[in-house]
Amino acid sequence: MTVRPLDLVRAAIRRMQGYVPGEQPQDKRYIKLNSNENPYPPSPRVTAALRRAIGDDLRLYPDPLADRLRDQAAAVYGLTREQILVGNGSDELLTMLMRTFVGAGDRVAYPVPTYSLYDALVAMQEGEAVRIPFPADFSLPPQLADTDAKLIFLCHPHAPSGTLPPLSTVETIAQRTRGILVIDEAYIDFAHETALPLLHKYPHVILLRSFSKSFSLAGLRIGLAFAHPSLIQELLKVKDSYNVNRLSLIAASAALEDYAWMRRNVDKIRATRGRLTQALRELGYFVYDSQANFVLARKQGINQQPIYRGLKERGILVRYFSSPELYDCLRITVGTDEQIDQLLASLKQLIS
Amino acid sequence: MTVRPLDLVRAAIRRMQGYVPGEQPQDKRYIKLNSNENPYPPSPRVTAALRRAIGDDLRLYPDPLADRLRDQAAAVYGLTREQILVGNGSDELLTMLMRTFVGAGDRVAYPVPTYSLYDALVAMQEGEAVRIPFPADFSLPPQLADTDAKLIFLCHPHAPSGTLPPLSTVETIAQRTRGILVIDEAYIDFAHETALPLLHKYPHVILLRSFSKSFSLAGLRIGLAFAHPSLIQELLKVKDSYNVNRLSLIAASAALEDYAWMRRNVDKIRATRGRLTQALRELGYFVYDSQANFVLARKQGINQQPIYRGLKERGILVRYFSSPELYDCLRITVGTDEQIDQLLASLKQLIS
Repeated sequence: MTVRPLDLVRAAIRRMQGYVPGEQPQDKRYIKLNSNENPYPPSPRVTAALRRAIGDDLRLYPDPLADRLRDQAAAVYGLTREQILVGNGSDELLTMLMRTFVGAGDRVAYPVPTYSLYDALVAMQEGEAVRIPFPADFSLPPQLADTDAKLIFLCHPHAPSGTLPPLSTVETIAQRTRGILVIDEAYIDFAHETALPLLHKYPHVILLRSFSKSFSLAGLRIGLAFAHPSLIQELLKVKDSYNVNRLSLIAASAALEDYAWMRRNVDKIRATRGRLTQALRELGYFVYDSQANFVLARKQGINQQPIYRGLKERGILVRYFSSPELYDCLRITVGTDEQIDQLLASLKQLIS
Repeated sequence: MTVRPLDLVRAAIRRMQGYVPGEQPQDKRYIKLNSNENPYPPSPRVTAALRRAIGDDLRLYPDPLADRLRDQAAAVYGLTREQILVGNGSDELLTMLMRTFVGAGDRVAYPVPTYSLYDALVAMQEGEAVRIPFPADFSLPPQLADTDAKLIFLCHPHAPSGTLPPLSTVETIAQRTRGILVIDEAYIDFAHETALPLLHKYPHVILLRSFSKSFSLAGLRIGLAFAHPSLIQELLKVKDSYNVNRLSLIAASAALEDYAWMRRNVDKIRATRGRLTQALRELGYFVYDSQANFVLARKQGINQQPIYRGLKERGILVRYFSSPELYDCLRITVGTDEQIDQLLASLKQLIS
């Protein structure tokens, strides 16, 4: 019997393009300002804990519920273990949220442009994406709450703009929606306030956190979801049994134990962010006020692809998006002061 | 507005129990013969490579496609990079297969009893599980191919019996089915033959491999899928972008570089398996001929829960299943000779 295996793929998957992650070149060393990685290394406590953990125990499965890390995170963030779920990066948590709440035809709303993974995840579930365009200033469109969506996704601060809406605006959406409000706080440690207080007031608010950015652990894939215990129970049902490996669990625990290390790096990055923003404005860019570890710089109506390419030729990677909303922008991760100096010098050459 | 968040959970998830993984006690040290972990440590090359990798680069995202590991695996298994997909454990690969092929109402067939995760994954996709009972000798039910299923799952060797059907029987199923045949070879290194040759003959055959058992890396979550390049392309669409972390990628690469280490451990385990099987038979158990790193021991009609509990009190964990098909069985992982001696001594006390 002849089987045509591609004919067996779900139509929803066949017609998808698939999400394209940012360039992670394996060949040479660039000044990498394209993936919002932290330019500073993780805490020495993390590396020390990892060194101690490398041994015979790698033959054993990890704790499927990650209880030690959950207890630590509970203490740090003022929650209980039962309000916390650990994911293989917050990408996995996004996948779990979609699988838990979104069936065929269910609506998922988010302001755009945003993380393009949302589109892909909704398509996989055969849900309906309700994409609400941001106004030019990236302020939060209030009609987000009027979409009859089962899930609303909000990056807080927003990516790729770096902007942070007032907490009262976010709360208004929580109050008006009849769905679940997922607040993705991957970049929150770089901002001046968190939406965490909303978690205590609204059982339909879910927060996501990441160790990839502020804790300098993108390579180890650790994310946290904070939610009402009854929702955590449901999310656990769709979790792969042993979703987070032993070493990542240990690294995350050690990172939380050295919270001050993270804060010091964040302070440095915030200072550099101010300098970068100022310098880009002096170069004629419109730069959104960023509360994240990146900035979005726009030259109204001027395609930035040549600039992106020129920087790449000079060994500097930044993020360029070809979409109509963002083709005239560059998204630049805040690196070290030295990296930003090199970026600015190259940029000056390219635009003069 | 009052939101009842649990009402927003998909009905398919609400009614699920969720998969319960084997006990992974974090409190004290047991002789752990319940999760089919390898009793021997990973290669010293793995631990050395991990030590070298612990440093500043942890702040960077991993290679999203894991090309270095894919190239190495391609060389070891006689494949090309494009035929290989790397997963966060083979559990993640099972999830990806379900999401790629199974829509609402689609059939998924497998012989039972088997890995109970299959039931959970089918339920999440709102598929229809076609559960074909094994005959008492755990030989492969040929009607598996006549189910009009989009996916057929086959553990090879089977879990929890450890039995390995003749390759010709597996090939008959590949020839007769109109769906995708997924052959889960998590335990294949402990067996005398692999179904890998079928991959080259049938574009609708997919093989799964794991680093958890033979390579002693359960703690690091690495699985491989082997499939036709066109299917790998589709599976990549549902993959989380950075699904395997940097350290696990490095560990898997180093493990493949020391293939001989794995083979030596497998040889020891196979010798111990023979001894364990013989001793259990002398204790009056029916023991299936195992080609895996565990054995299934049955006392026809006699509930083995008291034995399981007695062993646990004596510091030895084995796996007990309360289901009607398996309540009179124990599944025992093949440990070191010393561990198996202790198991047998305790077992003798308990049944005398």
